[in-house]
Amino acid sequence: MDNSGKRRSYAVIGTGGIGGYYGMKLAAAGFDVNFLFRSDYDAVLRDGYRLESVDGDVFLPAPRAYRSAEDMPRCDVILVCLKTTANSSLPSILKPLLHKASVVVLIQNGLLVEEELSSALPQARIIGATAFICSSRIAPAHISHTAYGALTLVPYSEGTQEVMAGIAEDMKSAGIKVELKDNYKSVRWRKLVWNIPYNGLSVALGSKTDFLTFNPHSRALVRDLMMEVIAGAAACGVSIPESFADEMIAATEVMVPYKPSMRLDYDAHRPMEIRAMYANPVAEAARHCCPMPKVEALMQLLSAIEEREQTKV
Amino acid sequence: MDNSGKRRSYAVIGTGGIGGYYGMKLAAAGFDVNFLFRSDYDAVLRDGYRLESVDGDVFLPAPRAYRSAEDMPRCDVILVCLKTTANSSLPSILKPLLHKASVVVLIQNGLLVEEELSSALPQARIIGATAFICSSRIAPAHISHTAYGALTLVPYSEGTQEVMAGIAEDMKSAGIKVELKDNYKSVRWRKLVWNIPYNGLSVALGSKTDFLTFNPHSRALVRDLMMEVIAGAAACGVSIPESFADEMIAATEVMVPYKPSMRLDYDAHRPMEIRAMYANPVAEAARHCCPMPKVEALMQLLSAIEEREQTKV
Repeated sequence: MDNSGKRRSYAVIGTGGIGGYYGMKLAAAGFDVNFLFRSDYDAVLRDGYRLESVDGDVFLPAPRAYRSAEDMPRCDVILVCLKTTANSSLPSILKPLLHKASVVVLIQNGLLVEEELSSALPQARIIGATAFICSSRIAPAHISHTAYGALTLVPYSEGTQEVMAGIAEDMKSAGIKVELKDNYKSVRWRKLVWNIPYNGLSVALGSKTDFLTFNPHSRALVRDLMMEVIAGAAACGVSIPESFADEMIAATEVMVPYKPSMRLDYDAHRPMEIRAMYANPVAEAARHCCPMPKVEALMQLLSAIEEREQTKV
Repeated sequence: MDNSGKRRSYAVIGTGGIGGYYGMKLAAAGFDVNFLFRSDYDAVLRDGYRLESVDGDVFLPAPRAYRSAEDMPRCDVILVCLKTTANSSLPSILKPLLHKASVVVLIQNGLLVEEELSSALPQARIIGATAFICSSRIAPAHISHTAYGALTLVPYSEGTQEVMAGIAEDMKSAGIKVELKDNYKSVRWRKLVWNIPYNGLSVALGSKTDFLTFNPHSRALVRDLMMEVIAGAAACGVSIPESFADEMIAATEVMVPYKPSMRLDYDAHRPMEIRAMYANPVAEAARHCCPMPKVEALMQLLSAIEEREQTKV
């Protein structure tokens, strides 16, 4: 509920595995959730919206579905679950959705996503977020959630702490695990420690998390990349202990082998999040006089892979 | 001819595209050339040995063919055209072929190949060599030479200058382009400036030389790798101007697009020359306090790729 006792209204922008999961959970808990659909719009209208989840299935026979942001109501909370590769369209999507007290929750990977949105749309009040979840859209209007699900929220714009706590309450009441943090740069860089090696190498080596973790050569490279990210974070003012790298690798050892999101994007011929996940961290660290050469080499390789695929089509 | 006026006798160890080319050219010019065959032995005996070359075809109906080094005569010059991945077998192959004045010409890629052979077989008098050639075995007893062909010779063991000059004369008389150098470390490192980026990236990106050269991302990575190699060379006492990198890239721009040797090895499920071409240079540079992080990342990636292939079989 917000200060006036009214239930917060939600919009979900980006209705893939992540937006579908969080949005349907909130809607199933009775919140007013407005979904922006693109290609799935007709399927949702015809068949309803379905979440198959290890934590219990959800079916919304008639969700509030829109084809255009212009047609949507202004909402209290806009959950942005787009890939960062679509962020150039974000300001024009968000403008008609915002009222004065709205907050935008950026559930995205990479670095500088808050800064870039804030610069393109200064009126946006932003909360940063990262999702630790295995969830994907397996068919039109059909999301499959197979593991995890926790959302980390962290304030970016000033004065968003209170509404962030309220959103966390809403989500917990909807069965979503939420963790609250206070330093968005730390949240972003810590997430990169895992994301940079595992996402890129899963594409470069055509592998899942298990090969990357157990093959001694890729494991050594994973660790070297993590160490560069930790050094880059330190240069940017974010202290992460080196032991965090080994903890991340140990945690991955016991995960069910899976394809990180960049590998799923690559396999589906979608653009990869190279800019937010690699170019921005490399540039930020370099700005603080900390080169990350192995990370940069992986970025160059991924950029070449992406263009090789495009020329193949 | 050697000092006594006798024509030098040759042995060819490693009868793929390179050994077949140089050996058949010498044999066609009338030199006594003794070939060690493995799987091609029966085909050569039955069909003869065939070189299809842009510079003129050669056919040897009955070359001096051997199945085992033990059966071969001692020779004045042993041309080693094995991949470095087979170098552990080299001392036992060479022992029965050497007389007191024999020289071993190591036509191989990578770094420390002379040092390693010298350490395993101290009596070997070694000449280093690099080949700039597109030549491959396309069928049993059948070599196809499509471009280039120059051999660079450089003394490693003391007192090999004179015989090296004689070998160069022999080769020139056989229509082989030869260049003589005097600093083997410089020859090895200069060759690595091209070999390290183009060989590894042709495997990592599944590309030929043209994509690697013209795609802006892989071109930037090629250049960064070259700069690391030039810095590593400098740390090891070999001065190569930075302009050499751009000259190499410009030279590759006008080449007929082709697959470097490591890519051919990879495609044919042969082991890749990762140790000689990557691990040894990285270790040598590191020993001289010059890390080559992007080269090392590429090495780790190639090592992982190799093991991924092996587990696939």
